[in-house]
Amino acid sequence: MPDQVTVIGGSGALGSGLALRLAAAGVPVVIGSRDPGRADEAAARVREKLPAADVRGLANGPAAAASEVVFLCVPFRSQSETLTNLKEHLRDGQLLVDATVPLAAAVSGKATRVLGVWQGSAAQQAAEMVPDGVRVVAALHTVNAPGLKDLAHELDEDVLVCGDRRADKARAAAFIELIPGLRCVDAGRLEQARIAEALTALLIGVNARYKTHAGIRLTGLTDRPW
Amino acid sequence: MPDQVTVIGGSGALGSGLALRLAAAGVPVVIGSRDPGRADEAAARVREKLPAADVRGLANGPAAAASEVVFLCVPFRSQSETLTNLKEHLRDGQLLVDATVPLAAAVSGKATRVLGVWQGSAAQQAAEMVPDGVRVVAALHTVNAPGLKDLAHELDEDVLVCGDRRADKARAAAFIELIPGLRCVDAGRLEQARIAEALTALLIGVNARYKTHAGIRLTGLTDRPW
Repeated sequence: MPDQVTVIGGSGALGSGLALRLAAAGVPVVIGSRDPGRADEAAARVREKLPAADVRGLANGPAAAASEVVFLCVPFRSQSETLTNLKEHLRDGQLLVDATVPLAAAVSGKATRVLGVWQGSAAQQAAEMVPDGVRVVAALHTVNAPGLKDLAHELDEDVLVCGDRRADKARAAAFIELIPGLRCVDAGRLEQARIAEALTALLIGVNARYKTHAGIRLTGLTDRPW
Repeated sequence: MPDQVTVIGGSGALGSGLALRLAAAGVPVVIGSRDPGRADEAAARVREKLPAADVRGLANGPAAAASEVVFLCVPFRSQSETLTNLKEHLRDGQLLVDATVPLAAAVSGKATRVLGVWQGSAAQQAAEMVPDGVRVVAALHTVNAPGLKDLAHELDEDVLVCGDRRADKARAAAFIELIPGLRCVDAGRLEQARIAEALTALLIGVNARYKTHAGIRLTGLTDRPW
């Protein structure tokens, strides 16, 4: 059985879809939410669809402490506050997989635009905020939440993974690639996350224009680029 | 027979590949270069591979004036100077298809990083610099130049087209889609070009890492999104 992972923001759109897909792949999942009641409800919704799933809900703090790999799937407007609150719960050796996209919608702007983040990207902001020894990679930005949540929807797309150490990226990819139809591509250092984050805003526009759930594929790569 | 197009920077890497592929698709092509001798040589190289091709070389100015649709394929460090020099040659009603990527390599930085352009993107800089009535769209950033230049290489990727009027984007797409294996996707307003431009820097990193010529595909779209 794969190791357990935590999904912070697991009651939100992307987080709940990710928790569902990981659970469907046999991964034990801890769903974290600010409100433990909402985390419980989100876990119950996963078990409704997947009665055999090993999924439970916890408040963000204990949820973050519960697993070695922690996915952060919160809206940009909550990212900084969430990471401040997780400082006493995260620890050396854990891997944080940040999926935050700094959409301008966070400040009532358009979802097809991103904000400039002082550190360069939401992922770099996360890397600055986590306790020493917590590794950060960025991934999953471009994966459409409604497509994840619908188990009948066949995924067929790449996930750009950015991070400063290849081993960290491979560790995140090992979980993400348990989800059928998702292939991880090493997209470079963590600083490249600004591009993957911005690309999400472009895809949101494409989705509105074409009334679809677009994903991205890199062509010209071998099938298993890890 | 399709209308003639001009490729400014047609002796460069992307420009010569684009001229070759358009010529192979039966499009009459005028290759523009700062040095008309280099433009002639670039045209001769196309005719070596495609003896029946209707391709000729001109200095940038007359080349830009020669066609209703003008592709701009120059390095970022030359974009501004080129457009200044083209001011007296471009005219109302023409369409400029800007493929400029503001790679940090323009100022001895990394090709995996982009510069911040005051206007938001190289394409918006182009739009600011062209004479009144010249329409600007952005396209082709992510298409790998070596892949274009090798006719034996089967293209299989999407081209993100950004612009403020759909008719302009469709006009550019009508030419680009004459090249087998390229599909154009409406990627939103011209301001979105900053994302397509930056994505190119990410792909350059992927190409180095995976020793390939990666392109992008958007999944989840119908085959002919126009």
